[in-house]
Amino acid sequence: MASKNSTATKRADALRSIEAIVQAAAECLGRNPEASLSEIARAAGVGRVTLYGHFASRAEVVDAAMSRALDRGNEVLDAVDMTGDPRLALARYIEAGWHLVDQARALLAAAQRELSAGRILELHAGPAARVEALVARGRAEGVFRTDLPVAWMVNVLHAVMHSAAEEIRAGRLPSERAAGHITATVLAAFTPPGTPVPETGDGAHP
Amino acid sequence: MASKNSTATKRADALRSIEAIVQAAAECLGRNPEASLSEIARAAGVGRVTLYGHFASRAEVVDAAMSRALDRGNEVLDAVDMTGDPRLALARYIEAGWHLVDQARALLAAAQRELSAGRILELHAGPAARVEALVARGRAEGVFRTDLPVAWMVNVLHAVMHSAAEEIRAGRLPSERAAGHITATVLAAFTPPGTPVPETGDGAHP
Repeated sequence: MASKNSTATKRADALRSIEAIVQAAAECLGRNPEASLSEIARAAGVGRVTLYGHFASRAEVVDAAMSRALDRGNEVLDAVDMTGDPRLALARYIEAGWHLVDQARALLAAAQRELSAGRILELHAGPAARVEALVARGRAEGVFRTDLPVAWMVNVLHAVMHSAAEEIRAGRLPSERAAGHITATVLAAFTPPGTPVPETGDGAHP
Repeated sequence: MASKNSTATKRADALRSIEAIVQAAAECLGRNPEASLSEIARAAGVGRVTLYGHFASRAEVVDAAMSRALDRGNEVLDAVDMTGDPRLALARYIEAGWHLVDQARALLAAAQRELSAGRILELHAGPAARVEALVARGRAEGVFRTDLPVAWMVNVLHAVMHSAAEEIRAGRLPSERAAGHITATVLAAFTPPGTPVPETGDGAHP
């Protein structure tokens, strides 16, 4: 039977390996959504057997890498000022959130292949809750439309952000134009019928 | 060496098999994006060997089924009146196009797993050209915004349509609300800054 010490050592080793694998997965899949588990194990400095000891499938590795990216993303979004004019707050959220989507787009492509749409949505619960609260406040203050459901509006923002990521990946949109395009599009989409669409100067600021 | 007649017979048999496989693929994948090639062969009334004789991979089968669905879709879209007020034309296009996206959403899910984003885009060239022409006309007539690229606006329409398909699949949006939501969202997104968003009564008609 293993001594208390060696159990603790083994556990510490396992935690270190898992951390190394998740970090390597985020990096490898972030460069290439088709990166193999062998590549990820190599980048993590562990053997394939160790990787398979901790993760039952490629989907589990992708899930862990995606969770990690979203945890980091939530930390960045914590720093965004969501107070004041909801349109300005939305522009700030898009500016910060967009960079996260842009950085994570290869990882997201891997997630879309390996994970269910429901699981991807679940992982995005943090960002979704922020946008939901902002949309609800903008509706209460009369600057966002109330004739469409809040969930639909949150979904429109994410759809437009992710389609921008695909446009960039396809070489049809320069990365530095994306936040402006997304903001100009979504602020217009959220404007109550009968009210003028805000002038954003290509969406940088309403 | 085969006689002229038997060659013609073989060719006719091959065409019949291919047609049956593509039709079965569209039906099976339209019900379940994970339908196996064995299921598709069975539904087509051909053996797996015959299927593999005509299609080198699952991706080729999915590609053929998707091409077929888009050919049919283009026929339906041919019947849509794209003249008159560009906002009304867009609403009619969404009404017709939406039903096609809705019907083909499982097939599209299969395509997203098997085909590259570039290939999916290429297959959508027909619908994309129609929207492009309409957006360009709406801009020339001053009813659609000119501060964002036409390609981006076409992409926004498709992103919102496809995200509606995912919302329905996830059970978060009743199918019969989709066209109204898409129209209300996209007409607002296309409105020139400084101009009021059209009242659509939940987007059914501007």
